[in-house]
Amino acid sequence: MPELRRDPIVGRWVIIATERARRPSDLARCPAPQQPAVCPFCAGQEAKTPPEVYVSGRPPSAPPNSPGWGVRVVPNRFPALKIEGDLDREADGIYDRMNGIGAHEVIVETPEHGRATKDLGDAELTDVLFAFKARVLDLRNDLRFRYILLFKNHGHLAGASLDHAHSQLIALPVVPGLVKEEIEGARRHHALKERCIFCDVVGQERRDRSRLVYENEEFLAFAPYAPRSPFETWIVPKRHESNYEAEPKERLGLCAQALGTTLRRLAAALGDPAYNFIVHSNPLRDPSSQSYHWHIEVMPALSQVAGFEWGSGFHINPVPPEEAAEFLRKVPG
Amino acid sequence: MPELRRDPIVGRWVIIATERARRPSDLARCPAPQQPAVCPFCAGQEAKTPPEVYVSGRPPSAPPNSPGWGVRVVPNRFPALKIEGDLDREADGIYDRMNGIGAHEVIVETPEHGRATKDLGDAELTDVLFAFKARVLDLRNDLRFRYILLFKNHGHLAGASLDHAHSQLIALPVVPGLVKEEIEGARRHHALKERCIFCDVVGQERRDRSRLVYENEEFLAFAPYAPRSPFETWIVPKRHESNYEAEPKERLGLCAQALGTTLRRLAAALGDPAYNFIVHSNPLRDPSSQSYHWHIEVMPALSQVAGFEWGSGFHINPVPPEEAAEFLRKVPG
Repeated sequence: MPELRRDPIVGRWVIIATERARRPSDLARCPAPQQPAVCPFCAGQEAKTPPEVYVSGRPPSAPPNSPGWGVRVVPNRFPALKIEGDLDREADGIYDRMNGIGAHEVIVETPEHGRATKDLGDAELTDVLFAFKARVLDLRNDLRFRYILLFKNHGHLAGASLDHAHSQLIALPVVPGLVKEEIEGARRHHALKERCIFCDVVGQERRDRSRLVYENEEFLAFAPYAPRSPFETWIVPKRHESNYEAEPKERLGLCAQALGTTLRRLAAALGDPAYNFIVHSNPLRDPSSQSYHWHIEVMPALSQVAGFEWGSGFHINPVPPEEAAEFLRKVPG
Repeated sequence: MPELRRDPIVGRWVIIATERARRPSDLARCPAPQQPAVCPFCAGQEAKTPPEVYVSGRPPSAPPNSPGWGVRVVPNRFPALKIEGDLDREADGIYDRMNGIGAHEVIVETPEHGRATKDLGDAELTDVLFAFKARVLDLRNDLRFRYILLFKNHGHLAGASLDHAHSQLIALPVVPGLVKEEIEGARRHHALKERCIFCDVVGQERRDRSRLVYENEEFLAFAPYAPRSPFETWIVPKRHESNYEAEPKERLGLCAQALGTTLRRLAAALGDPAYNFIVHSNPLRDPSSQSYHWHIEVMPALSQVAGFEWGSGFHINPVPPEEAAEFLRKVPG
């Protein structure tokens, strides 16, 4: 059973996922993970994954776990957290621990092995974003969960171990520290100004335009004012909405346009870099907030987290966001 | 001039260090940086660095910036922050910025190119730790600085760009977020219990012994209860002391024994891994605190920061600290 442990000083939780453990000699980081001979995420290989929990595109008459799907969501075969059991929160001397209860799912974005997220058409990427929403709506019924993190690791340097296009979902029994910080920051701004800080940011970026990457009717893609890494890009709805899962499919379609365009431009600008994207949304038990505003943060994996970052939480970024955005406005995508 | 920018939501500062900028095509992360033909940190190459600001071991009669030294501290040739100028804190619309004022120095740990930190004798490593202290005592006279971060990147995967053994110092005009979190957490514990949380941790680790790696009269090396990365090891003084720079040389000697032993054991256990270590100390303007307790955190660079970590601040660690510590107790070092 994986375990959640809390650092007694800063309150940071870590997941001790022993079932993913390797021997010390296997911990060396550099080599890219070997791809399996037969990819478990390809159409026709459905038996190689745990049974699906969501699927799109396959006719209802077809049997489950058979080909014919467009997006397919399955439990992770090597989950960081386990779905069965009780939290059993307990003290361990002065420390705090609980069982590593949670859901860890994989969203297979396409049945075709050779296509990356950036290669998906708008309708296909919309189906992926809709699958995110559908899984959140299902999992939030489980009252043990406080937060669902939706994210993608693309490329070995960004932590992906399989090449086939997929994103991930982890449902957590606690609200993670970084999410709390964001929510608290937004709440402070709202208490002071009675405005949403993200709406203020959207306003300034639309007026200023120097950090703008892409804009459509409903979404803005821009380089944030204080990016942690070169070419970091945020995709933010222009209209205030705190919860990702509250978005109707039409608006997810416009989000897919903004996200797809951003990923294509990053690929063109940087030569298909490894990247992560993370959906930031309001916690599950809060269906709507005046101060928080959901968005997606895309982070190319270009800079190393080194001693300075580990020690300070500061990041050193050699590329001003205005330069990155100007570059991204000019490349095709 | 580098720039400090503040994220308006979470308050995280980033350094936009344009003078370190490269073109987008140069940002690819994987290849190890090429080593210069002649190493600027070797004895005899003193002219290849900015003039030294501290040196140990060279007779006072010898000219500065000549060989004969044991430890040598020089300004970084490609500093993330600049020493000259005013902060010029200002608003940029809804955002906050200031000039990137600070000091960025390199502590060259030995004149010999082929020796790593773990290969230094106790007396040599003590000289390195004493140089850290001497630089803090000098730089804290500059009232623009609020915090000095001492850290080491060893190996390409941990962010080192030169092989020659060196550590770094960055003096900052703000107290970094992670440091504030730690200080706040320790203050809350002290307010509740009138005890230092780190002293409590030292007590439990000494009684429990399952996470202990090494112990001498004054220092404990142990795997923390909630480690972010496999084989993370902390070196903590057993006696309460908040400020690193307050430690007398004899105690730094015992710290050097604990640090050197830890580094040798990590190298033996993991095959000379890349690692970072960070000195965590109380901010400059607070000469002594009942609640905070300085220490060193050593983090082997074995796991990747991926989407989940970026989005949550959570870490997934496949190796329980009890297993890592047991392994480290058994290897030579």
